Amino acid sequence: MTRQLHLNAFLMNTGHHEASWRLPESDPYAHVELDHYVRLARIAERGTFDSLFLADGPQLWGSVGQRPAGALEPLTLLTALATATEHIGLIATASTSYNSPYNLARKFASLDIISGGRAGWNIVTTAGAEAARNFGLDAEPAHAQRYARAAEFLDVALKLWDSWEDDAIVADKASGVWGDDTKIHPPRHTGTYFSVEGPLNVPRTPQGYPLLVQAGSSENGKAFAARYAEAVFTAQQTIEDAQAFYADLKSRTAAAGRDPDHIKVLPGIVPVIGSTEAEALAHEQVLEDHIVYTHGVGNLERLLQLEPGRLELDAQLPADLPPESAIEGAKSRYTLVVELARRDRLTVRQLIGRLGGGRGHLTFAGTPEQVADKIESWFTRGAADGFNIMPAVLPSGLDTFVDHVVPILRTRGLLRGEYGPRRTLRERYGLPRPANQHVKPVEPAEPTEPVAPVLV
Amino acid sequence: MTRQLHLNAFLMNTGHHEASWRLPESDPYAHVELDHYVRLARIAERGTFDSLFLADGPQLWGSVGQRPAGALEPLTLLTALATATEHIGLIATASTSYNSPYNLARKFASLDIISGGRAGWNIVTTAGAEAARNFGLDAEPAHAQRYARAAEFLDVALKLWDSWEDDAIVADKASGVWGDDTKIHPPRHTGTYFSVEGPLNVPRTPQGYPLLVQAGSSENGKAFAARYAEAVFTAQQTIEDAQAFYADLKSRTAAAGRDPDHIKVLPGIVPVIGSTEAEALAHEQVLEDHIVYTHGVGNLERLLQLEPGRLELDAQLPADLPPESAIEGAKSRYTLVVELARRDRLTVRQLIGRLGGGRGHLTFAGTPEQVADKIESWFTRGAADGFNIMPAVLPSGLDTFVDHVVPILRTRGLLRGEYGPRRTLRERYGLPRPANQHVKPVEPAEPTEPVAPVLV
Ligand SMILES: Cc1cc2nc3c(=O)[nH]c(=O)nc-3n(C[C@H](O)[C@H](O)[C@H](O)COP(=O)(O)O)c2cc1C
Ligand SMILES: Cc1cc2nc3c(=O)[nH]c(=O)nc-3n(C[C@H](O)[C@H](O)[C@H](O)COP(=O)(O)O)c2cc1C
Repeated sequence: MTRQLHLNAFLMNTGHHEASWRLPESDPYAHVELDHYVRLARIAERGTFDSLFLADGPQLWGSVGQRPAGALEPLTLLTALATATEHIGLIATASTSYNSPYNLARKFASLDIISGGRAGWNIVTTAGAEAARNFGLDAEPAHAQRYARAAEFLDVALKLWDSWEDDAIVADKASGVWGDDTKIHPPRHTGTYFSVEGPLNVPRTPQGYPLLVQAGSSENGKAFAARYAEAVFTAQQTIEDAQAFYADLKSRTAAAGRDPDHIKVLPGIVPVIGSTEAEALAHEQVLEDHIVYTHGVGNLERLLQLEPGRLELDAQLPADLPPESAIEGAKSRYTLVVELARRDRLTVRQLIGRLGGGRGHLTFAGTPEQVADKIESWFTRGAADGFNIMPAVLPSGLDTFVDHVVPILRTRGLLRGEYGPRRTLRERYGLPRPANQHVKPVEPAEPTEPVAPVLV
Repeated sequence: MTRQLHLNAFLMNTGHHEASWRLPESDPYAHVELDHYVRLARIAERGTFDSLFLADGPQLWGSVGQRPAGALEPLTLLTALATATEHIGLIATASTSYNSPYNLARKFASLDIISGGRAGWNIVTTAGAEAARNFGLDAEPAHAQRYARAAEFLDVALKLWDSWEDDAIVADKASGVWGDDTKIHPPRHTGTYFSVEGPLNVPRTPQGYPLLVQAGSSENGKAFAARYAEAVFTAQQTIEDAQAFYADLKSRTAAAGRDPDHIKVLPGIVPVIGSTEAEALAHEQVLEDHIVYTHGVGNLERLLQLEPGRLELDAQLPADLPPESAIEGAKSRYTLVVELARRDRLTVRQLIGRLGGGRGHLTFAGTPEQVADKIESWFTRGAADGFNIMPAVLPSGLDTFVDHVVPILRTRGLLRGEYGPRRTLRERYGLPRPANQHVKPVEPAEPTEPVAPVLV
């Protein structure tokens, strides 16, 4: 069978374009309404996506004047979506900097059970002082320190998820023995950031633990991904950059002693689809016309760590920007934005227009055929194992993708035509169920890609 | 209209009797299965209960050999139940000692939105070193310190829930203004246990904030309840004790400057129901026969803070037990158990039998008529505003209660016959929606009890 493309629906508010909420079709309260997400999840499931994904940060970003602000807590929302869907994987973002391993491991274990093995965790370290100040800190911890904490967090969480062997429950009513205490393994962890006795108070789950997803692109971020991640989200502007990132991550993963096929690389794409290219471009222009540029300048100054007033709308970026090493927030996004502006000689206004569409992710306006071509070329030319689909406007953009691009991908044999039997999220991504670290490993069976009857 | 009885279904595993899992009818995996709870929630909704409730602690208690251990995380489980039910209130336990205010306030706000205003929080301080050791501590914090932290936690959470005024969202597409920044109020809290800048990243919710429930019975516990709680769970063995507790709590609430009618007192009852009294007693005996007494002794020694081996099965409790003031765990439950044993001159074996049925809650075996009489007499004689219904065996005990006791309560005009229009949990309990602390209070309308068409 042809190698299968993995699709993840990145659901955000009324869409990834920052002005999407201003369109007549958009519900400006949608991002805090369950029904909106239920509808989106069902569209994605109609498109036989592997998973859907909710980004998150534990803070209110900037001014509520600018755009729909706030968000339902993603694990809570995904639990509700678990009951509204049957097949699709459910990936929630949660921060290693502002959670405790016991509580978070337990929540993901609970979601994995409730969803029948469909839970995934987008592991983030959370940039920014706003979040830090909601958790007793004055400023964000240094980048390297956030990643050191993240690594220890994962080690603890993995031990907690393995603290019950799969067969720890005996349930012998006659003798009155419910569980086998010798198959319970408390982590008894004492480290730099955490000490956690354990065991977890949830049995081992359908997947063992949630699919581990990560999106860091800095040196620390990639090192972390190579060690732990099973899927990686990334923002890439060109196929060359994406190929370099892909090769780099696969070789780092191999160097870390893992099978490079067990880390799936998913660049983001913001498809703006029209029945002709002109229609797609016109749609993109309508969105751009709704951007409030004065807000954009402030946001860009913040991202680039410049004082307010440094940027001029119709000039290019200043020449004396700090190097990535001076950035404590989202390092790799910083570099991507600066390089994008320099490469295409964009004015601040043009740069804001580009970022408004996808915050640094690849935006692409075209026909369904063109979008499918773009996806196929990245997929077959070593730049991607699949895509993070980030519609500019929701729900309409996801609907259009599923109705018009998905059938083409299916015809080309790249995407399943239907889900078939229920599977775990990890199985959808062609990954094996992890063995419990306390059990002598048995030779794992070759992971089987889900069988996809191709519709022609 | 007659004063209405409030009913809360306390759902726990295969029932509140510790041996319930050993009955032929019981599923020993039920407590970690969504379907079990969906089924229970729907039975409770059929009985037009005000709410259902999940207890919790962030630790694995003792040996898994003894009984079904572990639990789905309650907020996660309740979110799934929110989508499976329409009317019933959803009360989750969460600890102020082992959570951060920002994350927890956000989760409850999210559940309140997703459930359409049906969220409640059973606020606990979590006794025991096991939990403490899962969160970086060696031992449990002292009782008074746990309550001091709880009070500060509540103050912060209340500020977070009020950080958006109800009309902070403008959603003006034409001008591109989504929210009114002047109606966002970050708590900017700095205190002994927390510093939290805010604002919360969730708008104000249908109820303003979740119904605040509490179950502490010590001096500190009651002081806390008088200040914050809108409903109180309590374990009481006799109507006299319950009346004294009720009067005490109401007068403390008035002394704290609140309307004593705005705190609802709900003692627990474990009803064991038979079509005759003899049948009920026989059923109780079957359950008692399934108790493993050697486990019971260990558990009792732990509760009483005695060294292993101090208790003898067929003797009474030792005379030299420590005073309640020496207990750092669940103080009031300690006293209740000791008094129960002394009053009824129980041997350790008999005491274990009693506790096995409801851990110190009132157990009552009888016909549906007798159970209804018991409930009515406590309700009309100043001992209760309603009851925490704690079936010994689940789901069957809840089914029996709903099929046989609920109709009697309805006939007596004490309980609604159907829910009527959707209401918030706070409305079900006859409580007003709290005003936002940042808005000048408008004279609140008289809280209206839900109209209950009585079936005869
Ligand atoms: C598709 C995608 C989604 C992301 N989602 C989140 C998120 O939800 N929350 C968050 O704090 N960071 C998120 N990030 C940021 C990354 O976690 C990471 O911090 C960022 O890419 C910078 O990399 P670095 O942390 O290695 O410097 C996301 C990044 C990408 C590419
Ligand atoms: C019906 C009921 C339910 C309770 N549920 C919990 C619970 O889920 N988790 C918990 O830690 N404590 C729970 N408790 C214990 C109380 O929160 C409280 O700690 C205990 O009654 C002792 O009171 P004190 O804390 O004032 O000493 C519950 C108590 C009652 C009566």
